[in-house]
Amino acid sequence: MNCPVLHLQSTSSERWLTQVTENLDLLLIDHAHCEKKAAGVAMNMIFAYVENEDLCRAMTEIVNEELEHFHLVLELLHERGVRFCRIKPSKYGEQLHALVRKSEPERAVDRLLVAGLIEARSCERFGILRERLEDQRLANFYDQLFESEARHHSAYVRLAKQYADDATVMRRLEELAAMEAEIIAVGDENPRMHS
Amino acid sequence: MNCPVLHLQSTSSERWLTQVTENLDLLLIDHAHCEKKAAGVAMNMIFAYVENEDLCRAMTEIVNEELEHFHLVLELLHERGVRFCRIKPSKYGEQLHALVRKSEPERAVDRLLVAGLIEARSCERFGILRERLEDQRLANFYDQLFESEARHHSAYVRLAKQYADDATVMRRLEELAAMEAEIIAVGDENPRMHS
Repeated sequence: MNCPVLHLQSTSSERWLTQVTENLDLLLIDHAHCEKKAAGVAMNMIFAYVENEDLCRAMTEIVNEELEHFHLVLELLHERGVRFCRIKPSKYGEQLHALVRKSEPERAVDRLLVAGLIEARSCERFGILRERLEDQRLANFYDQLFESEARHHSAYVRLAKQYADDATVMRRLEELAAMEAEIIAVGDENPRMHS
Repeated sequence: MNCPVLHLQSTSSERWLTQVTENLDLLLIDHAHCEKKAAGVAMNMIFAYVENEDLCRAMTEIVNEELEHFHLVLELLHERGVRFCRIKPSKYGEQLHALVRKSEPERAVDRLLVAGLIEARSCERFGILRERLEDQRLANFYDQLFESEARHHSAYVRLAKQYADDATVMRRLEELAAMEAEIIAVGDENPRMHS
């Protein structure tokens, strides 16, 4: 799936799928942390751009949904008898955040687009997991979460357009997506949602 | 009102009530920021104590409610034709956070109790505003928010007891409440929710 709606410039590799299907419990623990981090990112946006009420409203919705997903993953871990714990995160998020420009309004554009790209990659990977996992309970779980990630991606791209004109935003999104594709191709030695 | 359920050691002064009733728009702008900050504090707790699922569940509820209140205050500002903007916060939060001990598990106890005391003071002040404000729309608004602050206070105190025994927590709460009473008595030159 190289879905144009998600603005990704690559599809995830078989390397990743093999890596995580051999470590599903670890994937789920990392997934819970990712949902928590996604809620944290949306909350940080509220603090950074509090005078933008449209943004605050959209971010509030995302905070609520990501925290709901966080608890859904925790429940799934319970079901599987897996203890949730801290693990080393993949380098993906940090590498993407390093691409954010320092001065406003470019910073706002980049923060929103990077958050949007992470949602897009999660969405693409949830799409693969729902189709390819043999564990039907897990496949259904990823099917259930798929749609909201796509919606969050669109929300972030829409909001970025409040900080630069449409063409500029789409050009920057293409640049960032190209770098995202390079980062995710390298992956991470640890099995993670974004390895 | 010196409600024992809230564990406060003082009632708010007439000085404060006079200061804020003369600056209701500013009070509301600050109130919106306070709700946002309360959501941020609860989110930070999730990040700091993520392995405590009970805490994460309670904090998720608080994040959701505080963000909902944040938007309710923004709506009220709209109604009054007041533009929401950044303002200098009162020194109250910073002064209380400075009391938090540095090493765990004392740090967890203090962070939870400080958050709980801020909820308690907000609750006490909402109680005064709902009784004393002449503006009925505003008085009703504070009546509507009163109960959840009391509930948040109880949740924070309950969770603190997971990081030390009950007697230790209650002794520390008394210590912190005494310092809180001193801080709030001095107040702040700017009219704020916690001035």
